[in-house]
This record gives sequence, C-alpha cells and structure tokens, in this order.
Amino acid sequence: MADNVILRGQELDLTDRYWRAANYLSVGQIYLMDNPLLREPLKPEHIKPRLLGHWGTTPGLNFIYAHLNRIIKHRHVDVLYVCGPGHGGPGMVANTYLEGTYSEIYPEVSEDIAGMRKLFKQFSFPGGIPSHAAPETPGSIHEGGELGYALVHAFGAAFDNPGLVVACVVGDGEAETGPLAAAWHSNKFLNPERDGAVLPILHLNGYKIANPTILSRTRDGDLESLFWGYGYQPIFVEGHEPAEMHRKMAEALDEAFDLIEAFQTDARSKPEYRDVPRWPMIILRSPKGWTGPKEVDGKKVEGFWRAHQVPVANCRRDDSHRKILEDWMRSYEPEDLFDGDGRLKAELRALAPQGDKRMGAVPYGNGGRLRTELILPKLSEHAVEVGERGSLQVQSTEVLGRYLRDVLKLNAGGSNFRIFGPDETESNRLGSVFEETNRVWLQKIEEYDVHLARDGRVMEVLSEHLCQGWLEGYLLTGRHGFFSCYEAFIHIVDSMFNQHAKWLKVSRELAWRKPISSLNYLLTSHVWRQDHNGFSHQDPGFVDLVANKKADIVRIYLPPDANTLLWVGDHCLRTFNRVNVIIAGKQPESQYLSMEEAIRHCEAGLGVWEWASFEDDTVSPDVVMACAGDVPTMETLAAVMLLHEAIPALKIRTVNVVDLLALQDPDRHPHGLDNQTFDEIFTTDRPVIFAYHGYPSLIHRLTYRRTNHENIHVRGFVEEGTTTTPFDMTVINQLDRYHLALEAIERVPGLAAKVPDVTEKLKDKLAEHTAFITESGEDMAEITGWRWRRV
Amino acid sequence: MADNVILRGQELDLTDRYWRAANYLSVGQIYLMDNPLLREPLKPEHIKPRLLGHWGTTPGLNFIYAHLNRIIKHRHVDVLYVCGPGHGGPGMVANTYLEGTYSEIYPEVSEDIAGMRKLFKQFSFPGGIPSHAAPETPGSIHEGGELGYALVHAFGAAFDNPGLVVACVVGDGEAETGPLAAAWHSNKFLNPERDGAVLPILHLNGYKIANPTILSRTRDGDLESLFWGYGYQPIFVEGHEPAEMHRKMAEALDEAFDLIEAFQTDARSKPEYRDVPRWPMIILRSPKGWTGPKEVDGKKVEGFWRAHQVPVANCRRDDSHRKILEDWMRSYEPEDLFDGDGRLKAELRALAPQGDKRMGAVPYGNGGRLRTELILPKLSEHAVEVGERGSLQVQSTEVLGRYLRDVLKLNAGGSNFRIFGPDETESNRLGSVFEETNRVWLQKIEEYDVHLARDGRVMEVLSEHLCQGWLEGYLLTGRHGFFSCYEAFIHIVDSMFNQHAKWLKVSRELAWRKPISSLNYLLTSHVWRQDHNGFSHQDPGFVDLVANKKADIVRIYLPPDANTLLWVGDHCLRTFNRVNVIIAGKQPESQYLSMEEAIRHCEAGLGVWEWASFEDDTVSPDVVMACAGDVPTMETLAAVMLLHEAIPALKIRTVNVVDLLALQDPDRHPHGLDNQTFDEIFTTDRPVIFAYHGYPSLIHRLTYRRTNHENIHVRGFVEEGTTTTPFDMTVINQLDRYHLALEAIERVPGLAAKVPDVTEKLKDKLAEHTAFITESGEDMAEITGWRWRRV
Repeated sequence: MADNVILRGQELDLTDRYWRAANYLSVGQIYLMDNPLLREPLKPEHIKPRLLGHWGTTPGLNFIYAHLNRIIKHRHVDVLYVCGPGHGGPGMVANTYLEGTYSEIYPEVSEDIAGMRKLFKQFSFPGGIPSHAAPETPGSIHEGGELGYALVHAFGAAFDNPGLVVACVVGDGEAETGPLAAAWHSNKFLNPERDGAVLPILHLNGYKIANPTILSRTRDGDLESLFWGYGYQPIFVEGHEPAEMHRKMAEALDEAFDLIEAFQTDARSKPEYRDVPRWPMIILRSPKGWTGPKEVDGKKVEGFWRAHQVPVANCRRDDSHRKILEDWMRSYEPEDLFDGDGRLKAELRALAPQGDKRMGAVPYGNGGRLRTELILPKLSEHAVEVGERGSLQVQSTEVLGRYLRDVLKLNAGGSNFRIFGPDETESNRLGSVFEETNRVWLQKIEEYDVHLARDGRVMEVLSEHLCQGWLEGYLLTGRHGFFSCYEAFIHIVDSMFNQHAKWLKVSRELAWRKPISSLNYLLTSHVWRQDHNGFSHQDPGFVDLVANKKADIVRIYLPPDANTLLWVGDHCLRTFNRVNVIIAGKQPESQYLSMEEAIRHCEAGLGVWEWASFEDDTVSPDVVMACAGDVPTMETLAAVMLLHEAIPALKIRTVNVVDLLALQDPDRHPHGLDNQTFDEIFTTDRPVIFAYHGYPSLIHRLTYRRTNHENIHVRGFVEEGTTTTPFDMTVINQLDRYHLALEAIERVPGLAAKVPDVTEKLKDKLAEHTAFITESGEDMAEITGWRWRRV
Repeated sequence: MADNVILRGQELDLTDRYWRAANYLSVGQIYLMDNPLLREPLKPEHIKPRLLGHWGTTPGLNFIYAHLNRIIKHRHVDVLYVCGPGHGGPGMVANTYLEGTYSEIYPEVSEDIAGMRKLFKQFSFPGGIPSHAAPETPGSIHEGGELGYALVHAFGAAFDNPGLVVACVVGDGEAETGPLAAAWHSNKFLNPERDGAVLPILHLNGYKIANPTILSRTRDGDLESLFWGYGYQPIFVEGHEPAEMHRKMAEALDEAFDLIEAFQTDARSKPEYRDVPRWPMIILRSPKGWTGPKEVDGKKVEGFWRAHQVPVANCRRDDSHRKILEDWMRSYEPEDLFDGDGRLKAELRALAPQGDKRMGAVPYGNGGRLRTELILPKLSEHAVEVGERGSLQVQSTEVLGRYLRDVLKLNAGGSNFRIFGPDETESNRLGSVFEETNRVWLQKIEEYDVHLARDGRVMEVLSEHLCQGWLEGYLLTGRHGFFSCYEAFIHIVDSMFNQHAKWLKVSRELAWRKPISSLNYLLTSHVWRQDHNGFSHQDPGFVDLVANKKADIVRIYLPPDANTLLWVGDHCLRTFNRVNVIIAGKQPESQYLSMEEAIRHCEAGLGVWEWASFEDDTVSPDVVMACAGDVPTMETLAAVMLLHEAIPALKIRTVNVVDLLALQDPDRHPHGLDNQTFDEIFTTDRPVIFAYHGYPSLIHRLTYRRTNHENIHVRGFVEEGTTTTPFDMTVINQLDRYHLALEAIERVPGLAAKVPDVTEKLKDKLAEHTAFITESGEDMAEITGWRWRRV
C-alpha cells in the first residue's frame, strides 16, 4: 500500500493551478477563436460566431483529471479515464493538451500561443473537432453523445487487465438511464484476482439540461444505502470551496486506491472463496458550472441548470456579456499558468505523468495498440461430414460451439477472448464452450450449481445492454469477443450498435487509432424458430438498421448450414473495425455443403447451387429460386423439388446467398458482386423467387440498381406471428415451399395455364397442412421429415 | 384502514386450495390435450406432442394472484395485476379462468370438463393462444416476452388513477435489465394525492434460464439496503412451506396495503409538502417450480433452473416421466378442487372477487373501456399567418407547444393527458406548456427551481425507456399522451416501440379489446439540426424500423412548416391503436402554407406545390423536384429557384410529401396514394429528384412498385456527420440546393450539355461555401438568409 501523502501547501497550490489551467482552456475552447491568452482586451471578433459546447460538467471533469494525475504519479498505476459526461469534451481536450499528448498526435495544435489559438478555434467549428469526447479525443474509448454506457464500457475495459484501474465518471443525468442503473451490478462479474479495477465516480452536479437530477435530490441516507446495496462502499466528496475540495478529493482517491490495492493483493495471494469485494466508489458533489459566472442578467447560473451549456451567450454583441466572459477567464489568472510563449509553466507540467502513463496516451485508450491476433482452430477439425445432401440433421450452432470451445482453449494463455450473452449460451446450443470454461460468477456458488466459476470466460447476465457494453469496452481495449443473442431482442441494443458503428466510422479515418477487433453478433433463436415463444420473440429487423451504416463497417451473413456457419464464424474472428452480424438457427437442420464447398461458397458470398438446379448450360433457366437464411434455404430446396417432380421440363436454377451485402452493387459496398457476375447468376430477364430470412424490403433495397430487379419477387417475414409450429410460421408468412412453388408457376410466363393441376395440388397441400396442425399440434410428417435428395 | 384479519384455519385452507387449483390448471395447460381432470390414468395420447410453456415462475404468480384476490375482497380495492414474468402465461390464464372472466370473454372455453379440455389444448398450440401473457389474456396490459418493462408499465397505469393499486410482479431475471433497474426510481414521480399506488413484488425464485440471478444471490443486508436506497420499504416473504408462506404473504400484503392507504389518506387530507413516501414493496423468495417435481432423472428440478420451462419433458414416450407428471398433477388433489362437472367448487369460487373487481375484468386492464376523447383546441387559433411565402421564420415546434398548452388547459379536468420527454420539453421548444402546467417533481424543490411541481403533467427523466414505458402504461389504461424526443436517441426504445406495435397488431384482432389512444412521437432536434452536437446525435433511422410494422399500425409524418405540423399534431391526437411518428425541426424555419392550404395538403398526404413550380398545364414537366422533411423542403425550394433563375425555360414541378406512407402503393398501406394519382403527380417518365429527410433507401422501398420508380433519384442522410453548420450538414450529405440542382441538370436528358456554365457556377458555389465556413465558422449569409419568393 502506498504511503498516503496528505495534500497540503505547495502541492495543493500546484494542483489548484493545474485545474485552473484546464478550466481556462475549456472556456477558451467554447468561446474564443483568437486572442487565446487575453494579451489584449476581448473584442467581438475574438469570439466565435456560434457558441457551442457544455461548460456545466467540465470543471468537475477537470478537477477529477488533475487528481487522477496526482494518483498516477504517486502510485505509478495505469489509469484509463472513461468520461461518461463526454459532452464535457472541452475538458478532455484541455487535459490531454496540458499533458502533451494532444500535440503529439496533432502537431499543428502545438504547445504555444499559435497552437492554443488553433486548439480554441477548432473546437465545435466546421472542419474542426466535435464538441463531445469522441474518437478524435486522445485516451478516450467512450463517445460522449448518447448517455448510459460509461460504466459498462469501464468494466469491459477492466476485464482481463489486472494492472489497470478504470476511473469512470458517471454524471447524475446519465445515472438516470436504464443501462447505467443496471451497470452498477457489473461489480458481481469483476474478479479481483485476474481483472483490473473500476473506480466509479458519481458526479452529482445537480442538474440536467433543464431539471434537477433524481440522485442529487435523493434524501440523506438513501443515496448511501442505494450504493451500499449495489455492493459498493461510497466515499463522499462534497463542497465547493476549492482548497477544501482538493484536500477531500485527494483523501478520497487515496482511500479508494488503498482499498483497490488491498482487495487485489488479498485475492491474488489467497485464492480461497470470498464474496464480491465491496469496491470503493466516490460520490463527488460539486456545483454545476463550478468557478463559472454566478449570475448572468440577474439569473442564477453557477450551481444551476443554466450553466449546462454556454452560460453567457451573447458575447459578440453584448458588451456586458463579453465583460462577464473576460472576467471569468481572467479569474483563472492565465499569466500564472502559461509562460510567455503560451506553454504551460514547468512546475505545472511536472504534475502530469510521463509517456504512456498519461491518461491521453495510455495504450488501453487506443486498444488496437495492444491487440494481438487470436489463435484459431483449423476449420477441418470441426467440419461436418455431410454425406448425402440433406440427409444429416445437425444443430449448426452446436458445431460452432465446439469451434468456439477450441478458440477458448487455444487462447487461454492470452486471456483475450470472451463470450457474451443474456443467459442464452446453453439455450443457443453453444454449450460445448463449458467443456473449456465456465460462466463468470463472483457471488455465492451452491454445490448444485453448474458451470459457474470466478474465472469463467462466458459472461451471462439478463441484460443485452450489459453484454453489449462490456463487449464494446473489451474490444475497445484491444481484445476479442463474441455475442450470441436471441434475434428479436438484439433490438434492445439498436442504439448501442448504432453508436459503436459511428465510433468505428470515425476511428477508421484517424491514422493514429489502431484497428480493434470486430464486434461479432450471432443472432440465433431466430424468427422462424420462435414458434414456441410467439410473436414477441419474432423479429428479424435488426439487419435493416445495420444496412443503414457505412458499407465498410458492416457485414451480414446468413449461413444455411453448419459448415458455412463455421467458415463465417472463423472469418468474423479474423476481421477488425467492423460489426459482423451472423444469423443462424439453433435447431436441427439439413446439411448441404462439404467444408470445401462451404469455403468456396462463402468466399464468393453467393452462388448457384448446381446440385440443386435443373437446367442445361445452353439457355437461361425458366426461373431462379434464390434464398438467404437457413429456413428459407430449406423451403426453397423443397419448393425446387416440388416443382421439378411436378413439372420435369421446367428449368430451375437455385441460388443461395450467404454474404447478404454481396447483393448490393459494388460501388455501394466493397463486398458487392460485380454487375456482370450478378447478371449471369440472376439472369437479366427471368423471374427470381427470392426467399429471404427477414423483412422483404431489404432485398429490394440491396438489389434495386441491378438489371433484373424488376423480376425479383421477395418473400420473407411479413409481421405475422404467434405460437405455432415451425412450418406453420413459414405458411402464415407465405414463405413456405408451397407458396414459393406457386409463385414460381405464376411468374414463369404461360406456365400457370399449362399446369392448373399442379397449382391445385399445391393449394390442397396448404389446406391439408392447416387442418392437420390445428388438430394434432404437429407438422405433417412428410414435411418435418423432408430431406434433400437428388432425383 | 381495514381491519387486518390474520389468515388462519379455514381461510388458510381455502386459499391454499385455490392456489392448488391454479397450479393444477397451469400444469394441465403445459402438458395435456385430453383427460383434463385425470378421470382415467394418463396415457401418451393425452399428452401434447410439443411441450411448451414456462412452469418455473408460475406457482409463484398463482400464489400472488390468490392473495391479491383475498385483499380485493377484504378491502374492496381495484387492483391491476402486471405480470413481469409474463412467460408464466399458464398462471394468468388459469386464474382468469378460475374467477370466470376467461369464459365470459371466450365462451367456448366454458367452466366445465369440455371447457377445461379446450383450455388445456389451446395453450401454446397451433390456432390456440400464446405461451406468454399477451393481449389475448384478460386483465393484462403487459406482454410477457421481452423483459424489462413491467414496472414502468405499472407506474404508467397508476398515474392519474387515484383509486387503483397496481400490483407489479418483477421477476429476478427481469430485474437484471437496464430499464427495470431504472424503473424503481419511478416512485419519485408518483403523487399520492392524485395518482394511484404501485406495489412492486420482487419475486426471487433464484434462477434464469440457466443461471442464478444477481439479486437472489446478493448478500444479506445488501438487498434490503438497495431497495431502501431506491426509496422503498421492503417487506420480506421467504420460505417454501405452503401454510407458513400463506400466513406470511397475507400479513405482508396487509401491511403493504395499510401503508399505501396511510400515505394516500395523509397526502389527500394534508396538502403541505412532504418528501416522496417510502412506499412498500414485497420481496417474495420462493422456490423456482415450487410444488413441482423435486427431481427428474436424478437431477435437481424444484428450486433450480431446470424447473424454468417444462420440468419433465418426455411424458409421451417415457412411462416414468409420465408417472412423474401424473403424480405431480394428482398432488394438487383435483377432486378436492373441481366438482363433477369440472367446475371450481363453490366454496373456492367464493374466494374470487365479483364483476369488475376481478383482476381479469378490471377495466384498467382493457383501457379502451375507460378512454374518453380529448377536447382539442381549434387549429385556427394557433395557425401562423404566413404572409409572403418563406418570408416568415418561425420555430414550428414552438407553435405546436402553444397548441399542446391549450390541450392541457382544455383537458385539465379530465386528468387524462400527459407529455413525456427525456429532459427536453424546453429544449425542443415546447416550453409554452409550462404556462399551463409544470414538470412532475416529488423530491425536494429549491426556491430557485422553475416549473417543478408535485402535480405537473409534464414527465421528464433522462431515460427514454422510462418515458416510453410510462406512456405505454398510461395509454394502455385509457389515457392520452405525447412523447417528444431527440430523433437520434429514440433508437434507445426501438425494441419497446417494436413490442408495443406487436401488442397493437394483436389487440386490433380481438373484438373485446377496446381501442386505445395512439402512441405519438415528436422526433425533433433532428439529424439536420444537430450540427452542434455532432455525429452521435445524427441518426434518422427510426422510421426504417417503423416502416417494417403492419401498415395499419403506423404512420410517419414530415410536416415542412408550422401549420402542417399543427394539423399533423392535432390529427395524431384524434387517432387510436396506432403509432404516429412526427418529424419536425425546432429551429427557426421558413413558413410556406396557410392553415387552409396546410389542411388540404396534409389531408391529401402529398401534392404538387403549384406556387413553387414552373410548368405549363399542357405538357409534363422536365423534372420533378420532390421533398419530404423540413430541411429537404427548404433545400428543394432553393434548388428550384436556382434552376429557374439559371434556366428559365426548364419546366419544374415541385412536390412535397407530408404523410410518408402515402408513397406506398394502396394495397400495401391504407394511406397509399392510388396509382393513377401517383403517376399524375410524379409522371411516368420524367426524372424525379427526391430530397428526403432520412436514409434514402426508405423512399426506394416505398416506391419500388410505382410506374416511374426507375427515375426516382433520392438524396438523404448518407451517414456523414460531425460538428459543423446546419447548411454544411446538407453539403456533406449532398442534399443541399447545389447538389440537388446539379442532379436535376444531369438527369434531364440533354440538359447538361446545353448549360455547362450553370453546372460550373453551382460547383463554384459549393467550393466557395466550404472555404468560407472553414474560415469563419458560419454559413454564408446569402444561404442562411434565403427565403422563398415567387419570381
């Protein structure tokens, strides 16, 4: 345990000056485009034409930053600063500038007057930097836009990083969100032996945009009780007088870091069972807009919501406003902080840590620097022997589960791979992973519990928000992961996916941000096999959202069987800076492709299945039967058989799509198939009956620029669902083999008139099905027992 | 305060028998399709071929139901049962059958042996009912699928219903979700004077699908501390021995209802300020699968996760499994519960409340029964005088705010309208509502706080989940509401929207479910005017999700100015059983249509703006400039002006779309414009340059079956964003007036070759813009100052 040195005298004074420097630079960024050091009186033209940014939270963020610097220097620890109130972007930028990291990354923003002028002007300025902490911000893994995810990101960063302390600032606004409220329970998943620590700092500054916050007005005692109940020991730092607050904060941080060290030392030296450590947290209560104007135009500002954004607004036109601004900035005494060249004075520079210990430079904040490739098993070791096509029934995700088990085994030493899911790993048939590892569980374990352990690598909690957030934090700090989820409920994290995709889009444009591993989703228990859970569990719309994102960020895979799923899973674990969505069922299903065929098919993204086609090489087929997704593939193959048996002369081509975005034209998506090949496969004029896993519109959207798109007729989920049988799910959405075959007959010119008997027979089959299941509760045997055979 | 009668002797025995009856019926639903009263030994053919449903939570739900019946009888209170673990559907169905409501609604499921056979068979059976509590379930306002929303629904139901107690069962699985974790804080928004009460019952049965739950393993003391910290007083009911548990539960409910009554009486008689009441909650700890098989095949079942779904699985083929099932069902002694006709014995029937006091019949559970129309202001009183088109700059949402203020005023007596939003009512320029009401705030109010009051009708909390969930609960119990939100962050509740739309879809198919008011979203602070907040705040994709839903459920409106927004807002408040999405900016913007024109335009859904067109009646125009959304409309009008001034001979038609789904063909959407009118407006062969608010693909998706869709060229948000100026946002996404004009020139056959100078000038303008803003931080004056004038 480090010797705690009480903050007093010179150190207190220096810390306060450092804080003032950060505050000065923060205000400067919000307001000024010139005259950065106030070497002359403020004039209208020094003020930016549009004043943007959030002052309210910023002095608190700066206060914390200064004190964390002190802790890092005293204790030689690695600290990552996760800034929940990321809209306090000026503070994060100011501090990384003060410690030198900003200018190292962006040399044009140099440590002198010219650089400071650039620093100020670029903030929230066209062509400049965002107003929030963002990928552009050194040391940040957390965008300050949509609130709720600071704490899950922090825990994600701490897992498997035993030497790291993540200091996570949670604003009292953000603390009202659902994901944040659940995230406090992450302490039950943090292993003091193997993981780093998270130090939450709940920053109560009292107000949101226009309202008090719930926690800041929570009655005495309840606040402490709440966080004690969450399992923490809260340390309070409350006040507004700077010197007193510096002393309190230094003491609080010393106490917190002592506790962290004690828990870790204890756990790492004595491995016997203990309950979850009662980790420290800090509750910092300080005024909103602390050190800013007390009043403007006779209205309360400091300590009130009016300090939230720009506390004094009209500085260009209103002399009295400009005077308030100038007085405010001069109150920090810039001449006491910066030397004649505009550089932070040496005695203050000495307060910041050095090199990679600086929070703007800590490698965890640019996780790609730490990332190493996974060691991956050979696909051949997990390949399914298909035998006669369609004769073998296999749970594809179970095969992937064995592959993932081996990924865990091969990378056990690296401690850089985890599997995430909302209590569904076993349900999603990935249970083989429990041969190699367990679920993480730090609370009490009963003797009859199974697959629970303190050092498990499978993270399960009934919150998609926590799974997603932990995984994001884990990836952003340079590791790898895999998230399996019921397809319908992945919508719970739509907005988190959205924000992560935005982070990736911007990160890819920054050379200094090293690539991180892709975020890999396995969506299973999907719409077609939630017949037992009913309508609420039936929704394939997540990919529609995914397809809105920039093409180089996203991939959508629909492997139809186990070997294709294996290839896709393996491929996704090799990629970086992407979001990969894999959709595959967990129920027993027919197997079609050998591993070699699967590799060829997946690499192409889509292709003709010649073994399932009935055509000759000399002419175009009469109809193309296309499919994407495991259930649509099964129904399409059955439809092809029905058609071929009933109308042997019909020339049928069967096309399967694995990599959905290959359908898009190549100038829209890097995986887009070139137009010539596309036209060869889908023809330029023949009807295409496309059976698709999700909402049909996506296929139209992806293919609308293709030559033959007028003839592409898509069937998919049309929002009809209930508790029924698997086959009936396809019938009520008209995606079943009979509807597919009927549509083919209807679309091939002249065919319907020639084979009215076939049409009638298919319609009879549909009626027979409905009567049969309503009575028996089962699908007809010939349907569930269908298997592919070449005639 | 009611006299509390200790549960003992005969009443205890009767209550236990009632519970056993519910448990018996629950098991029967999961397993049997015949022999409902076990009048003969169980045979394989009595067992359903597919065993579905969730036993684990069900006995606990039944236990609570029986005890709530007792409370209702003793105290003559109205209780609504919100069943968080709604997958315990068999229990909800069993209880409403026992009390008679089920057979009243579904007479074919009669109270006799034949009816019981139907009751059993229909459960989770094709053509039958879902396995979860669902719209089909009497008395339910809560779908048991996606977890997290039980408690917000409960509070939403309690607001403005002073005579109602909502008993809300929260499973310990659901308690791990983010929305649920935040929902506990809803107590800070519940006014004991005016609102009803919520009694949360946290049901700790220890396990999720395959894991223990966090709260069930939380160490002693912490659990109590946690809920005390949330502001509740927890009452524990723990055990497994039925008689003891009955006594404890009866005492706990008596204590809870005493407290509720005391707080309400106090608040309603003495109106002075108090802090938030410390409402009671019950923590019920009982075994998962309570009273079910202890072991199956030598493995622990009762009290473990193996009891979650179907505890003994192979009853059709395995005699020993069937024996376990039969013994289990007989352990409830059906002959002691049901008479010879299969009807619940009279002494047990007497335990259920009568008429509308039954929880399956309580009107709050079928809110349309209670719904009354809103009194709405005259549009003419709020209409904006437009004057010369485009000359007036108005914040359209501010105009709507004044209208909403009057809605509040006119309906103050009805107490049936509230406004919801995540701390953004003022920011979204709806602040006029604070002339009529305040924000609800039950915690401490400081003397400098503004617009906070215990009886406010604006509900603000920094959680879209809470806003959405409260509103859903409020609507489902027969009231009206309005939710304003930043457009990007509405994705946070994608999945809640999704589930609500599913609820509406099914409800509309049930004649006994009376229509409820529509869920109305105002999405503002939208993608084009989040230039200051940057990329994380820029996302227009919510409507893509909305458009996936059944056509008769959803509407999407993009009013271009204040009068059209007024019409749309007013219209939405008159509709029912829908989700209405309105997208409109909050910044000052040009006004185009008088109120009369706005009414005509909005009723048509889309139309030609003749005053902004340059064509003659005899021939088709050269180009159609179409737009949807306020910013795209402004840019389109500017592009039309640029084109007309540069190329006076060009025949330009301007089309504006307010009701987006009018673009869809009429057989896909009830608002879809007929094909002939569509072709008249958009022509059959001329280029259409379509400026759209969101991701371009949606327009293609809606129009792909229209004659001229090959010629529709859409511009919209292409996922380019940052902190910049409003106009620059359109430039980086190529939706600005110059890009629109350039595309028109390019698309009109032969035009580009004729006017190379115009093309060059437009490109110069774009370059000039970029240079100017990068230096000045402002848009060029001529651009921000643009206004529409007829040349």
